[in-house]
Amino acid sequence: MPIITLLTDFGTADNYVAEVKGVLLSRAPTATLVDVSHEVPPGSVRAGQYLLSRVWPRFPAGTVHLVVVDPGVGTERRALAAQAGGHRFVGPDNGLFTPLPEDARFVALPILRDASPTFHARDVFAPAAARLAAGARLDELGTAVSDVVRAPLAAPRVSDTVVVGEVVYTDRFGTLISNIPRELVRSGAPIKVADTGVGPLRRTFGDVATGKLVAYVGSGGTVEIAVREGSAASVLGVGVGALVAADRGRTR
Amino acid sequence: MPIITLLTDFGTADNYVAEVKGVLLSRAPTATLVDVSHEVPPGSVRAGQYLLSRVWPRFPAGTVHLVVVDPGVGTERRALAAQAGGHRFVGPDNGLFTPLPEDARFVALPILRDASPTFHARDVFAPAAARLAAGARLDELGTAVSDVVRAPLAAPRVSDTVVVGEVVYTDRFGTLISNIPRELVRSGAPIKVADTGVGPLRRTFGDVATGKLVAYVGSGGTVEIAVREGSAASVLGVGVGALVAADRGRTR
Amino acid sequence: MPIITLLTDFGTADNYVAEVKGVLLSRAPTATLVDVSHEVPPGSVRAGQYLLSRVWPRFPAGTVHLVVVDPGVGTERRALAAQAGGHRFVGPDNGLFTPLPEDARFVALPILRDASPTFHARDVFAPAAARLAAGARLDELGTAVSDVVRAPLAAPRVSDTVVVGEVVYTDRFGTLISNIPRELVRSGAPIKVADTGVGPLRRTFGDVATGKLVAYVGSGGTVEIAVREGSAASVLGVGVGALVAADRGRTR
Repeated sequence: MPIITLLTDFGTADNYVAEVKGVLLSRAPTATLVDVSHEVPPGSVRAGQYLLSRVWPRFPAGTVHLVVVDPGVGTERRALAAQAGGHRFVGPDNGLFTPLPEDARFVALPILRDASPTFHARDVFAPAAARLAAGARLDELGTAVSDVVRAPLAAPRVSDTVVVGEVVYTDRFGTLISNIPRELVRSGAPIKVADTGVGPLRRTFGDVATGKLVAYVGSGGTVEIAVREGSAASVLGVGVGALVAADRGRTR
Repeated sequence: MPIITLLTDFGTADNYVAEVKGVLLSRAPTATLVDVSHEVPPGSVRAGQYLLSRVWPRFPAGTVHLVVVDPGVGTERRALAAQAGGHRFVGPDNGLFTPLPEDARFVALPILRDASPTFHARDVFAPAAARLAAGARLDELGTAVSDVVRAPLAAPRVSDTVVVGEVVYTDRFGTLISNIPRELVRSGAPIKVADTGVGPLRRTFGDVATGKLVAYVGSGGTVEIAVREGSAASVLGVGVGALVAADRGRTR
Repeated sequence: MPIITLLTDFGTADNYVAEVKGVLLSRAPTATLVDVSHEVPPGSVRAGQYLLSRVWPRFPAGTVHLVVVDPGVGTERRALAAQAGGHRFVGPDNGLFTPLPEDARFVALPILRDASPTFHARDVFAPAAARLAAGARLDELGTAVSDVVRAPLAAPRVSDTVVVGEVVYTDRFGTLISNIPRELVRSGAPIKVADTGVGPLRRTFGDVATGKLVAYVGSGGTVEIAVREGSAASVLGVGVGALVAADRGRTR
């Protein structure tokens, strides 16, 4: 009973996700389907990348991840299937698969003449995902390619005195999630977001009073800025792209 | 392991969908449940019809489709189960099943005295869907009826020079989906929406620049109007009901 | 094939729900996952309580309910697992489990050192839910506790002439759901919401014309106030906490 996860920008109101699931269950009837998110902002490959990077390692080996944030569906961009870490992936060649390990293997999927040129999720990616779930090897799906699009997020800049990263995702709670990893910060380091001090790096929400700003290492292993029982995005008026700085000197 | 799909206007925030699923899994424990959409605009039988028409043929034969957009739940409207093309359906008799084939068979479901008069999805339709999924024949569920409500969408009007249809659905991306089928248009035919020219009928988004209007035959087989990486509904300021015209003369 | 239901305030756009599901399916691969709702208003234990009370009894015995509305995740609040009526539950000790029967048994879950202090759903509750689904007994998960937080909703006040309750939930349709149970009202009793008369207690929507206010006993067994094919919350301009009064005198 293989798992197929679905991550798209299709929303959940329309027919698109259900059409994809109909194709998947017609061809891989015993698959377990898991929705990751269908609310990626339309066309946001960056947000799709982030969500994929957070989610795929949590699933068991053998899982097939269908990832379709595909503003270029009507262009010559390639369709891919991939394998890495015992997992399989299908989706467009537009940078979505940047979070996969270096040793990931890729094939280009053929695009059949009768595939709708505006709905490859249904007509190209879902059939490929179903074949993988049903036991096909990656090589059976297409021809190996090595020059896939990689669009890495900017790495934080590190000096002797400061680490400067940026907000890469804002969640439902208005929490600002940065790209500064745990390894580059010390407990108690003063944190700034867009030049506003938000206090020392703490452990969790409970270390500040309700309504106060708090910085901590979040569940994805990077520095986050939240408001306890509130929204840091609203309070600070910033979002993706805002600079986040962590002092590397001694704790104040 | 039969599939039961769910298509409602209940939203996903409240308890309603989960109560229905509890009933389904209590009575058909091995069923695979698939959400089609719960975000049909409240009471919009038209939108429910459209989504059902797009989705049901994608699922394997044997699937049971629970379809409840039911503004008349507190009235004398009948409760139906149906069979067509190897699929089964349950839902209210209000036009939702208009997209089923002509040879569909229908039965009227009994409404037990202890059914909540405001929640037939839980107390009438889910038990019927579970029985069908568990192997019951249509005849076992109720008495045959033939005078079910059919509320077909307006057909496009065709003259020697022009086809005039209308927008029947607007999706998450602001794409305007018309009722003009592929068979009535030619590649390159000039397309108008609400008297605004949107250019010749093209193949896909990629045929225009980012931000431009584009008409093409969509994944449902009818003419659609989109803005590449944008929203045609916003740009044109129109939605369901807007007229769509396709020139039948020679390509410009 | 045990069922695990999920009820959270995480929303469905972000990675959180999928990370939880990855953990569940890694540890209980044959579990059937059912989303109850992820759109509980952020931090609203009251709304979580209400939804749990409506949904859990609809599922078959043996179901595990993962319930995480957890504004105190960064504090010393305990993590619980519970058993009642043949069902199992996991979630924080903040009043969410108030709707469980009096004879519910509870254990406090250990919180491992490497659990993210901001994501116990993934690192504490999901592993516990998976263990229960995989067959563990409640006692195996933690140490028995009896002083769990109970935060009951206000009970309606009953006098000889009137029952006064309040709106405890507003649904997608703008229906106002009160805490006045069926047993305390008579058919035809005059109903007021926030001092506005909404007519006698009727059976269902169909008893009034489209667009009119109607009070009836809803599918959860308490008095509800709706507008037929409209929104009572919008028409009356009230929501959770508004007073609802039912006359106990003779029918008008």
